[in-house]
Amino acid sequence: MRIALLGGTGDIGQGLALRLAYDTAHEILIGSRDPEKARTKAEEYETELDSRGVDPDVKGFENGMAADRSDVVVVAVPPYHVSDTIEDVADRLDDDAVLVTPAVGMKSDEDGMHYHRPGAGSVTAVAAAAAPDSVSVVGAFHNLAADRLANLDIDLDVDTLVVGDDDDAKETVTMIAEQIDGLRALDAGPIANAAEVESVTPLVINIARYNEGMHDVGTTFH
Amino acid sequence: MRIALLGGTGDIGQGLALRLAYDTAHEILIGSRDPEKARTKAEEYETELDSRGVDPDVKGFENGMAADRSDVVVVAVPPYHVSDTIEDVADRLDDDAVLVTPAVGMKSDEDGMHYHRPGAGSVTAVAAAAAPDSVSVVGAFHNLAADRLANLDIDLDVDTLVVGDDDDAKETVTMIAEQIDGLRALDAGPIANAAEVESVTPLVINIARYNEGMHDVGTTFH
Repeated sequence: MRIALLGGTGDIGQGLALRLAYDTAHEILIGSRDPEKARTKAEEYETELDSRGVDPDVKGFENGMAADRSDVVVVAVPPYHVSDTIEDVADRLDDDAVLVTPAVGMKSDEDGMHYHRPGAGSVTAVAAAAAPDSVSVVGAFHNLAADRLANLDIDLDVDTLVVGDDDDAKETVTMIAEQIDGLRALDAGPIANAAEVESVTPLVINIARYNEGMHDVGTTFH
Repeated sequence: MRIALLGGTGDIGQGLALRLAYDTAHEILIGSRDPEKARTKAEEYETELDSRGVDPDVKGFENGMAADRSDVVVVAVPPYHVSDTIEDVADRLDDDAVLVTPAVGMKSDEDGMHYHRPGAGSVTAVAAAAAPDSVSVVGAFHNLAADRLANLDIDLDVDTLVVGDDDDAKETVTMIAEQIDGLRALDAGPIANAAEVESVTPLVINIARYNEGMHDVGTTFH
């Protein structure tokens, strides 16, 4: 498959790009509003993967171009850019494309990180509202510590939670997620259940802050 | 220590009573609005523990009587009874008593279980508002599946998250929690961070529903 990572030059995009290129045979397209930045980052990722003996297939494009060519489009941008980013590329999406959103709305104060629930109910619901009707939206990859994801020396050994209203789209994302070594995908139900999934991200950030030796903490359900 | 479980005749109270009596040397007081019901349940728990070769110390009392005698008071009642239950026993609490709240506000619909955040910000904050100023409130034991907790044949192997504004009170609750075999307590910060902790409970219920073989699921952070 072709997998686009819009905003793939950021933290979570970098981690997903490296893991997907390292562990799977998918073609990875890094998207950015600035195609030059996307190409530079794609080259950085290729250099990192080359050094590990992997023959990588990572290319950089402007977001619309990356979306245009892809079966799965991960919208790896901050929550307040999710809607705009999807609207910008909406015309380029195939009818059977799957949009994936890992973004989480958060607010920080002196006590810690707090879930900031959008009016639509969740960032996943925001993405679904912005997406063309023919395109399925899936929430996944939320609560993965970016540094742990991007460091290929570390065994992931964490779960990611998948929400979506279209079972086929969820199955596609679950399959891709589980192709990443040490990542297990669990079904958390439809998009209506996304808020409870998204709010794990501020929680793990708080746990990392308040407990020694728990930097880059993840979670497993068992 | 003396540990009171107000509403200790319910699911989570039963699980905590059995685990605490089985794994620790604390004296366990089961509280109920109906003292006769509390005594009957306490006898049930003692029979269960007797059959496992433990000489149990579990007694039943009316809630106020249970609170009156205890160092730690767990308010194991539904979220909408937390405030009333604390106010009912407020006069009986020692100044250095620690109140513990495992309750979570939830609403269920056809899609799943959803976190229902109280106006005060969390059930822990509701409890703190209802408690006398001299009494410390700690949120803990939220996301433990009641059946898994109550079944002493099952190794727990889960984490519980502890929130509170008083470090000594948190330390007491952490110590008690970790005396339960297979339970690890992690610090999630002050009460301001309780909503993210409480919202794990509807999430694990959704995961149990949407994934085969994950009944009574718990979570660990690592």
